[in-house]
Amino acid sequence: MKDKVKVAISIGDLNGIGIELALKTHKDISKLCSPIYCINKKMLKKSSELLHIKIPKDFIIQKVNGNFKINIGKTSKKSGQYSYDSFLQAINLAKQNKVQAIVTLPINKKSWNKANISYKGHTEVLRNYFKKNAIMMLGCEKMFVALFTEHIALKEVHKKIKTKKLIQFLLDFYSCVQEKNIAVLGLNPHAGDNGILGKEEQKIKKAVKYVNKYLNVQVDTKVNKTLDKKLNTKKEEIFFSKPLVPDTAFSKYNLLKYKYFIAMYHDQGLAPLKALYFDESINVSLNLPIIRTSVDHGTAFDIAYKNNRVLNTQSYENAVKEAIKLSKKIKK
Amino acid sequence: MKDKVKVAISIGDLNGIGIELALKTHKDISKLCSPIYCINKKMLKKSSELLHIKIPKDFIIQKVNGNFKINIGKTSKKSGQYSYDSFLQAINLAKQNKVQAIVTLPINKKSWNKANISYKGHTEVLRNYFKKNAIMMLGCEKMFVALFTEHIALKEVHKKIKTKKLIQFLLDFYSCVQEKNIAVLGLNPHAGDNGILGKEEQKIKKAVKYVNKYLNVQVDTKVNKTLDKKLNTKKEEIFFSKPLVPDTAFSKYNLLKYKYFIAMYHDQGLAPLKALYFDESINVSLNLPIIRTSVDHGTAFDIAYKNNRVLNTQSYENAVKEAIKLSKKIKK
Repeated sequence: MKDKVKVAISIGDLNGIGIELALKTHKDISKLCSPIYCINKKMLKKSSELLHIKIPKDFIIQKVNGNFKINIGKTSKKSGQYSYDSFLQAINLAKQNKVQAIVTLPINKKSWNKANISYKGHTEVLRNYFKKNAIMMLGCEKMFVALFTEHIALKEVHKKIKTKKLIQFLLDFYSCVQEKNIAVLGLNPHAGDNGILGKEEQKIKKAVKYVNKYLNVQVDTKVNKTLDKKLNTKKEEIFFSKPLVPDTAFSKYNLLKYKYFIAMYHDQGLAPLKALYFDESINVSLNLPIIRTSVDHGTAFDIAYKNNRVLNTQSYENAVKEAIKLSKKIKK
Repeated sequence: MKDKVKVAISIGDLNGIGIELALKTHKDISKLCSPIYCINKKMLKKSSELLHIKIPKDFIIQKVNGNFKINIGKTSKKSGQYSYDSFLQAINLAKQNKVQAIVTLPINKKSWNKANISYKGHTEVLRNYFKKNAIMMLGCEKMFVALFTEHIALKEVHKKIKTKKLIQFLLDFYSCVQEKNIAVLGLNPHAGDNGILGKEEQKIKKAVKYVNKYLNVQVDTKVNKTLDKKLNTKKEEIFFSKPLVPDTAFSKYNLLKYKYFIAMYHDQGLAPLKALYFDESINVSLNLPIIRTSVDHGTAFDIAYKNNRVLNTQSYENAVKEAIKLSKKIKK
């Protein structure tokens, strides 16, 4: 049992479905890892009673102060504050190496607002906390999409396509996933059609070219230590693709060819992902000192505490699995 | 046999896969309609010989002047000009009511360029020819996406989101499909998140509200002639949805709810469509005096005249079927 990865679970907004997911899946989850739930006894008792679910005996908790009435399906200052504190507790456990990864259950942005927490979501908190440019990646085993720009208006996107920034992003991304053959999307229809429908693809091309060269030299230097001169004649490796035509980027053919996709903006990557794999998808924060994964859905206030309803636990379970996988990868 | 719909087929770029599609599917297609292929004897003979496919006996052609060497998989001035002339011939047949619809096989834009044809594609030609604002719609039985903006750079899109223009577009669209419950997408991530991530959704909302009101009054007036006062208390019908969050718009749940989607820009609608239904999809020109459908793929120069290869004829066959369906709809 000592071999199991320890995972901190931040409990999310207690007026939503997070706690139900945690209680219902605990038996399965605890076969895969040792979960530590960031919640106190009082709040756990309240929510489990409301759900009519017994608290499992091996449900290990890490105290998060707070005591308030659960207001099913409602935004509230107190539930907002509690979900934030639970998240901070999970980060602390990870920072102190008491857990190897954290998985976050959904928070409600309006409740955070009510509690005067100005962050737009978990990723932003992590970015600020660690002063590192976290990369937001969503997806599942079949495909992952990393976002070069995230929560900004569509009209702002083109201004953010800058070669230097993209180079840093691609290098960071590569250092996290350590895989070749990553798809990079263009920005414009038909990837600009040779500049007729937009010119940002030139910048993307430049960044990709630079990064591919850079990584080839790196790989080469590493390899040359052990192998002979023949390597100098070897073909250049493709780490990142040239900017793909966005509307055909996620065709069946490309999904066989690529597992990781770099989208230039939010909906470019997430609309196809959610069309294909909404239920299975999770959210992963890359490029941070800690591992964090998350469900890819919200608090689902409309179905919270309606115990009779079949709850889709796939995204949560996948988030835990990916957290375990990533933490084992890093151990190596 | 006289009942069959007559369909003009423009033959597309003869250096590409169009003619192979026409010859290979003729037997099946001619069970559904009476196709008239816009090509002359000489060019038909040349291409069929290159393909080693016998010309079917009932392969009715409509002459298009021209005589040139087929250059497999190459762009050329002559093939560009010929594909354009074949298209114009098809339009003529439709205008003269000699056919009830036209289906276009793929042209090559670069070949059009070489032939000094400045149009970006079929739709633009039709728009100019009929001086009508054709609506470009792509999809298949499971979902159709109509594009409010088409081939423009991403940074230009937000400037085109104007309430009045959108109202006209939605009214035109409704008059073509005559269906309720059409999904309208927002422009920004999370549909602007109440203005935090962009304000264009306000304009979209305004347009939708106006059009829904307008169509309700229209429907009401029609109905009141035959029915009694009770109708005054009836609920307002939803013709168009409020602006949907783009990244979840094409989830399984929404695909059960909606068949038609209005996308604000090219990749917003086409990336999810092609992720889900690339092979089946077709292109339909709405809001024109004639019916025109098309395959949703290009000239596929890389596989042209490689007769041994399994060619996907689904898009072409679906285009013919939709053309027949639309022409019967209008007859009523």
